[in-house]
Amino acid sequence: MRQENFMREAIKLADEGMRDGHGGPFGCVVVRRGEIVGRGNNRVTSANDPTAHAEVTAIRAACAQLKTFQLTDCELYTSCEPCPMCLSAIYWARIPTVFYGNTRTDAAAIGFDDDFIYQQVALAPEQRALKMQPLLPSEAIATFKAWAAKSDKVRY
Amino acid sequence: MRQENFMREAIKLADEGMRDGHGGPFGCVVVRRGEIVGRGNNRVTSANDPTAHAEVTAIRAACAQLKTFQLTDCELYTSCEPCPMCLSAIYWARIPTVFYGNTRTDAAAIGFDDDFIYQQVALAPEQRALKMQPLLPSEAIATFKAWAAKSDKVRY
Repeated sequence: MRQENFMREAIKLADEGMRDGHGGPFGCVVVRRGEIVGRGNNRVTSANDPTAHAEVTAIRAACAQLKTFQLTDCELYTSCEPCPMCLSAIYWARIPTVFYGNTRTDAAAIGFDDDFIYQQVALAPEQRALKMQPLLPSEAIATFKAWAAKSDKVRY
Repeated sequence: MRQENFMREAIKLADEGMRDGHGGPFGCVVVRRGEIVGRGNNRVTSANDPTAHAEVTAIRAACAQLKTFQLTDCELYTSCEPCPMCLSAIYWARIPTVFYGNTRTDAAAIGFDDDFIYQQVALAPEQRALKMQPLLPSEAIATFKAWAAKSDKVRY
């Protein structure tokens, strides 16, 4: 029942955030060794932050609490399958296990763009609905060369 | 020269952030009507925030300054092609135009996972390197039904 209870907490956060006008109907908890270390619910419209999805918020909270930028020993419970932004954040945070309630198809059915963005991310830059254009690559590459040569860099 | 100068500002932020130990070699500016309204550089390792990429940071800064959760009349200049997290954040912010310096292939060549995550996001949940598992969908769907019926919701 342990995993079910963490999912119910994520659903509760989704319900409360929606009811209180924080944003969309999404909630999430990050769990480490059987303990919740980060909570989040969607706050896009109330915080004026398009990146304040439940998962991003919970990951930021967990990292702040644990004072780390990697959550390799954590599980994430989210009331809906992560959008590509949140899924990628999960990869960057190195979380190995994700449980989800609703699906991206369910999200599309109530008006959210998760499925559209999944389709867009898979396209080549020049095929996307937004305009993407290379600019000054010959100048930008110098920074990457400096990174490669940097002796005291912190990898992530 | 206008666009080139904004890209040079993004590259400068990348250089300075790397030099000052904030995080990886990435910088970004958001521009509205010829004026920079948000700046960002990567701060993952110094802020203990795996979502603190240059683009996410610049988008959050621009939204805070403009007091909005949508940047439909803005352009984004980033020193490197956005990773899937940042690209999706750009879609959620409704930014229609993106200029980028380095590419995801350049990023992979100096040790960043952008290209790997692009490949992972395109897979079905059960095919990914991380474990993704549905849980309690019959309970989670109630929140979505409540959202669909909510009369005072703010869409995004």
